[in-house]
Amino acid sequence: MSTTEFQIDTLAIVGVGLIGGSIAAAVRQRRLARRIIGFGRNHERLEQARVCGLIDEVATQPEALAAARLIVVCTPVDRLGKDIGMLLNVTSPSTLITDVGSVKSPVVQQASEMSGQIDRFVPAHPIAGSHLQGFEHAHAELCRDRLCILTPLFRNRPEDVEFVRSFWKGIGMRVSDLSVEEHDRALALTSHLPHLAASAVAFLVDEHLLDYAATGYRDTTRVAAGDPELWTAIFSENSGPLADATSQLIHTLQEFLTALSSGDRSRIQAFLELGQQRRRGFHDCEQGAGEST
Amino acid sequence: MSTTEFQIDTLAIVGVGLIGGSIAAAVRQRRLARRIIGFGRNHERLEQARVCGLIDEVATQPEALAAARLIVVCTPVDRLGKDIGMLLNVTSPSTLITDVGSVKSPVVQQASEMSGQIDRFVPAHPIAGSHLQGFEHAHAELCRDRLCILTPLFRNRPEDVEFVRSFWKGIGMRVSDLSVEEHDRALALTSHLPHLAASAVAFLVDEHLLDYAATGYRDTTRVAAGDPELWTAIFSENSGPLADATSQLIHTLQEFLTALSSGDRSRIQAFLELGQQRRRGFHDCEQGAGEST
Repeated sequence: MSTTEFQIDTLAIVGVGLIGGSIAAAVRQRRLARRIIGFGRNHERLEQARVCGLIDEVATQPEALAAARLIVVCTPVDRLGKDIGMLLNVTSPSTLITDVGSVKSPVVQQASEMSGQIDRFVPAHPIAGSHLQGFEHAHAELCRDRLCILTPLFRNRPEDVEFVRSFWKGIGMRVSDLSVEEHDRALALTSHLPHLAASAVAFLVDEHLLDYAATGYRDTTRVAAGDPELWTAIFSENSGPLADATSQLIHTLQEFLTALSSGDRSRIQAFLELGQQRRRGFHDCEQGAGEST
Repeated sequence: MSTTEFQIDTLAIVGVGLIGGSIAAAVRQRRLARRIIGFGRNHERLEQARVCGLIDEVATQPEALAAARLIVVCTPVDRLGKDIGMLLNVTSPSTLITDVGSVKSPVVQQASEMSGQIDRFVPAHPIAGSHLQGFEHAHAELCRDRLCILTPLFRNRPEDVEFVRSFWKGIGMRVSDLSVEEHDRALALTSHLPHLAASAVAFLVDEHLLDYAATGYRDTTRVAAGDPELWTAIFSENSGPLADATSQLIHTLQEFLTALSSGDRSRIQAFLELGQQRRRGFHDCEQGAGEST
């Protein structure tokens, strides 16, 4: 199935916030589904999203999703597993479920503890977002050209994986596969550790010193202004890989401290040079590098 | 003396790069000096800066600066102390010297070891810069509205401190005073530690993982792309205060690791909330927050 061929009758979005709303907007723009059901706990907010034109129907009872061909679950990462497990249990054998969680292992584990139908869940992590929240900031281009990591499960049927892949490609994303464990280890380093380092530096710089801070502080600590509740959930859900990454960071800083204390300039410079070299491998294409978790 | 009254016959800039050239441009734009002498080791580069109109005269022998009323030394931080000591010894009692060093204690110490005339040196740190280097990128607005930290010495005559203060105000900077030690401790936290954290994270993220990195990685590690030689010099010159700051960072990360490993979500969230709160105290005014060391 080519990207342009993805077309279904009913798509459901569970959790119509920034990311869920942006997925809905892209689906609508590209005419990938005949109708979009928005599901959530807050009927009033969903109704507003419907009036905005992001979704066609509002549902607050999971049974309303029984007929959906694909459900995209966009709830907070520490609720995903339960939400997916519940949805697997109330939907038909022809319904596939994917998600947007920035941590995969506990989501898969919780969902499979709740449901024997985990084969219908094809986990995904679209790396896209913004520091803004809520469907009011959603737009059809949020995911475009960004990377979506697919973490297929060994129980998934290959044709279901390809179907879900064609969905993510259909809204304009590049798709790359990792195992669940590879994903969580990679993101611990590329996303969660930078956030932790930013927060730790921000934590250490008292307000009375901020007059003396400039762009180095500004950029290094920017993400520390992010939502503590969201990041507590991410850190907690990915505690194992993040603990490993944090230990590596502590070790690196201890090595640096030894070099600094012994006046070993060549070792300090070698450390900075390797950091510079790796950082230069990052292609800083603004339009392709969305804010994300 | 008010800001607008600063006016001298001869100003000398030692090291006509980005910052030295930008100071020259601002002095010229605001007509603060009748002539500007550019001093350095590379006659050809200085001649180019003269042709560009940044300076009036080129000098490669320090004796040529004997008649300058004020010398602004803009050489790399690990050469500043020696350059200033040497200049104090070849200039007249009416010549004052200031600098742009991002570390102050070793500069003052080295200069005072070389010269008995340290009273004529009024140290300064204009917090302004760019990731670009060389006088070709210099411009009169680089320092405008940025903060210049003055670290007067107890040997300085009060009128000399006020004279140098009026110079920095004259090129459009806000001026704030700290002691040499306060400056170095403050900058270790607000500038050097963010750079170290950025480099350490960049150091830990292998090239093959960069596909999975987004804006969190991009901003947190941005300064790691900076010049390793420059930052090795800064780190080495400020090794004491930076070692203290690094130890604090390691301690904070260890505390975080304990909370993470024990599943203490409320402690993780409290840590993130304090980081967020402090980061929000930073007024992110783009035009006032220059790239700097």
